[in-house]
Amino acid sequence: MKNMSLAEKAAHELLSYIHENDLNTGDKLPNEYELSKKLLVGRNTVREAVRILAARNILVIKQGSGTFLSDRPGIIDDPLGFSFMEDQRKLVSDLMQVRLIIEPSIASLAAQNATLEDQKELEEICDEIEILIEKREDFSERDRDFHAKLAECTQNLVMKNLVPVITRGVVAFAHTVESQEYQQTIETHRKILKAIKEKKPLEAEQAMSYHILYNIQRFESEDKKSEKPNL
Amino acid sequence: MKNMSLAEKAAHELLSYIHENDLNTGDKLPNEYELSKKLLVGRNTVREAVRILAARNILVIKQGSGTFLSDRPGIIDDPLGFSFMEDQRKLVSDLMQVRLIIEPSIASLAAQNATLEDQKELEEICDEIEILIEKREDFSERDRDFHAKLAECTQNLVMKNLVPVITRGVVAFAHTVESQEYQQTIETHRKILKAIKEKKPLEAEQAMSYHILYNIQRFESEDKKSEKPNL
Repeated sequence: MKNMSLAEKAAHELLSYIHENDLNTGDKLPNEYELSKKLLVGRNTVREAVRILAARNILVIKQGSGTFLSDRPGIIDDPLGFSFMEDQRKLVSDLMQVRLIIEPSIASLAAQNATLEDQKELEEICDEIEILIEKREDFSERDRDFHAKLAECTQNLVMKNLVPVITRGVVAFAHTVESQEYQQTIETHRKILKAIKEKKPLEAEQAMSYHILYNIQRFESEDKKSEKPNL
Repeated sequence: MKNMSLAEKAAHELLSYIHENDLNTGDKLPNEYELSKKLLVGRNTVREAVRILAARNILVIKQGSGTFLSDRPGIIDDPLGFSFMEDQRKLVSDLMQVRLIIEPSIASLAAQNATLEDQKELEEICDEIEILIEKREDFSERDRDFHAKLAECTQNLVMKNLVPVITRGVVAFAHTVESQEYQQTIETHRKILKAIKEKKPLEAEQAMSYHILYNIQRFESEDKKSEKPNL
């Protein structure tokens, strides 16, 4: 605390206030005047503290209507600092290694724990991806949704927040692998979905292992083809 | 971009400036006046933009000496929003599930890829933990260092940033499990270290699986003992 500016200290206090008062996502904060009284600091400091927490996506400032607790508090873009890694080619390969470790287990847990509602949503995403593929449109965003939804199906709070970070990392900073493997994508997604609906963890896990290994293999052969980084 | 404030847009521009000019960790940024000219915004906006990036730990403002690129840019405390999860008891159990999935593979990769320097550092951490245990002092921070160092030994950039987030998550929000299992900790850490020094991935993996499963088992029996959450 000793090296913190006044505003940072106030941001810290404000965070404690949010936790102590059990504010939930979307809740409105008291106005500047009230916060200034509660935190015992000036209104300018309150304003700066609010900005600091807004930068961390803990608070959302809506002009004219007030300050609210974010819908996904504390979840910022690129929280693991991927964009600052110098070797982006190695980053992609390392992200794939991490996905190969995590995602087969996620598929297995999803097969155990997915609710009927989850299964329905997952199927809808599968359908949408197939429609996009049919039209030869970009399906990468819906593909990330598929993997994010699988993480939700596990009912594990950490996986749910972690997977979007990792899949976004691959997409945002790597355009090395073109998403052209239409048939493989459709078939493997369907296979994973089927295993989840039938509550077969091992089959879900194996289908996901295949899915990711296939993509790693594609990435490696693209990588060999190109002399210099094509990121 | 359309809902962004002027300061947020400037923060975005400043981020691009940092990337385009290949600034490295610890590098000093141009002063406010120069940034104002480069980004074509007023100095107040520059100041706000710098504060936004400082809140995300991308920049560090050192009073009197200027603004620098952080040593660990973009890595903030609690980047996955653990402190905002309502059910902290479930969070701990979910974090352990994630560790059981990730850390045995990390131990395996560490056995493959650790340099001699890595091995030496890991051994030093092991030694320090044992000294702390001998004195019956808190070794939880050095224990986190042990797991973080293992992640570094993998040479995987993502693991290196991810593991501290997950181990810190367990510690910061869960005081359920008392670190009393001295003998088990010493023996398993030594076993993992030995496997890494002898470059035996499977043995490292299995020792880590045992280590985490043992802790999960302890957590579950503590959990049963206590009627209400003792977080």
